[in-house]
Amino acid sequence: MKAPLLGITMGDAAGIGPEIIVGAWPDIVRKIPCRPLVYGHPEILRRAAGLKRNGVEILKIASVNELTETALPPRSAAVLPCLCCGDDSVTEVRPGTIDARAGDAAFKAINTAIDDALAGTIDAVVTAPIHKGALNLAGYHYPGHTEIFAERCGIHDFAMMLYLGPGENLISPNGLAVVHVTLHTAMRSIFDLITVDSVAAKAHLADGFMRKVIGKSARKPRIGVCSLNPHAGENGLFGTEEIEVIRPGIEKAKVDGLDIEGPFPADTIMIDAKNGRYDAIVAMFHDQGHIALKLLGMHRAVNVTLGLPIIRTSVAHGTAFDRAWQGIAETGSLFEAIRVAGQLTSGH
Amino acid sequence: MKAPLLGITMGDAAGIGPEIIVGAWPDIVRKIPCRPLVYGHPEILRRAAGLKRNGVEILKIASVNELTETALPPRSAAVLPCLCCGDDSVTEVRPGTIDARAGDAAFKAINTAIDDALAGTIDAVVTAPIHKGALNLAGYHYPGHTEIFAERCGIHDFAMMLYLGPGENLISPNGLAVVHVTLHTAMRSIFDLITVDSVAAKAHLADGFMRKVIGKSARKPRIGVCSLNPHAGENGLFGTEEIEVIRPGIEKAKVDGLDIEGPFPADTIMIDAKNGRYDAIVAMFHDQGHIALKLLGMHRAVNVTLGLPIIRTSVAHGTAFDRAWQGIAETGSLFEAIRVAGQLTSGH
Repeated sequence: MKAPLLGITMGDAAGIGPEIIVGAWPDIVRKIPCRPLVYGHPEILRRAAGLKRNGVEILKIASVNELTETALPPRSAAVLPCLCCGDDSVTEVRPGTIDARAGDAAFKAINTAIDDALAGTIDAVVTAPIHKGALNLAGYHYPGHTEIFAERCGIHDFAMMLYLGPGENLISPNGLAVVHVTLHTAMRSIFDLITVDSVAAKAHLADGFMRKVIGKSARKPRIGVCSLNPHAGENGLFGTEEIEVIRPGIEKAKVDGLDIEGPFPADTIMIDAKNGRYDAIVAMFHDQGHIALKLLGMHRAVNVTLGLPIIRTSVAHGTAFDRAWQGIAETGSLFEAIRVAGQLTSGH
Repeated sequence: MKAPLLGITMGDAAGIGPEIIVGAWPDIVRKIPCRPLVYGHPEILRRAAGLKRNGVEILKIASVNELTETALPPRSAAVLPCLCCGDDSVTEVRPGTIDARAGDAAFKAINTAIDDALAGTIDAVVTAPIHKGALNLAGYHYPGHTEIFAERCGIHDFAMMLYLGPGENLISPNGLAVVHVTLHTAMRSIFDLITVDSVAAKAHLADGFMRKVIGKSARKPRIGVCSLNPHAGENGLFGTEEIEVIRPGIEKAKVDGLDIEGPFPADTIMIDAKNGRYDAIVAMFHDQGHIALKLLGMHRAVNVTLGLPIIRTSVAHGTAFDRAWQGIAETGSLFEAIRVAGQLTSGH
């Protein structure tokens, strides 16, 4: 089997996307069994290579076929193939600024990568950060990447998951996935969104993802479910959602065959997860999962979009305009996003 | 100035209290400038010494005066003075069981220590964990330590704070305090409890505590305030409490002279706190603070009761009946609770 073709989108040219791609390139090629290419602008990447001075050369290509069908050298730590998307105006964008030309170039790179993924030309898309403001200035009105992917794929039911691979503070041998029952919504609105069905559905998404990570023949993923209320509600003293909603949701998923337990207090379940007791956590709201996963591995956490017909992973951080083009941005999250994308293609 | 006299209550005899006190004793005496004594039962502590085999002898005393006025040896890593509280029936309690005799003994030790602290005979009280069930069986109907202290001190306005000293994962040079605007209450109820005044009041409590830790002559404590909603509400898109309540509360505290900023997303502010940007965090609800502090230092976190006329610190964990009397319980939280109590007496 050939190593998977992974398309990496360059992100906003004014942000840290280009430099983390070029900076991580040698490690990506040497350590991850994949054939990577970048969707973006070669001149921007060349500047990033000048900044990083790690000997990476940018090779402009016109289509993915050049990688697969011609006499191009195989994947190389010294050569970064860049499929040129958008026009040259992006080369005039100044670092750390919100610029419609950067937004336009970023969108076109994403769009081309989605085309290729839907056509089966590449096996997965990994996205570097974009800036919502620049995207809007360029006339593309999306809250973020996920919604672009969902619209292009014609999907309405999708979920964003955080995933942290094993290592550092995390003992869990297969890493840790966190799926959120509610995410980008006001806290006042979460009570209506946390239902028996939504708890069970998110548990299934977590289970499905971790089955791919663990491998098909192995044991079932172990899933832990957070409480909503402090101390898991203290038997109804601090709220009844654990009794009325979350526990029935867990029971429903258990009937479906999942290895799942809870609800447990969110502060103790995260310690147990860190110590390897769970493969995946179902969190009730954004901060429960994000506080834990960012503390456990700020620079290694990865976003995975669940529910799409194509594989898409992403860095878990933003464009960091205040630190961009200084050559200091952490490359860990991008490396991990590419590693996880490669892993998911083998289970696809 | 004499080293402060710190009274340590033994906690539930069936839990890990006795063994962590005896286990930590040599370190407490050698590393913390204080004169410690234990309120509990000498026979239980003798058994714990037999378990730990660290050469600590238990010396039964009848009053604190014996430590201060007689020819008793000064503080020693080998001699643990125990002020005997309650009757001998506690010696019949089996490890890991809920027993009224253990609840009774634990309550009487706490009560005697509070007497001595209110009389000024000792400088602070440090509590080992009790079991709410055993306390109730013995006829003492309190949710926990804090309410016993509040009632005995005639106090209605008090707050429980989590504190983690510097070290391990925490870069902050003075450690990190987390005060919660809401704590042991259902999540549905927090929206009414988060007010301009309660945000400002908790910021003042955090400021007052960290002033003692940092020292009076030094700079003001730097306080960061969490958002309630994800992404700090995204300018009102995910909730308006940041705009309508939390920010005005911060402004109010700023007018009072506090060095305070926010509201910031809880997942990123905790990373900044870990990296030393803040001395104290004001969290909006239980899990925001507890997930972070437990992940940053599970075995070193300390509870401090704010608002009492006496100094009281506590371990941040429970009786751990499932692990008790095996000699494996972590002593870090108790050591830290005693260290922090000693530190607070110097600023009192």
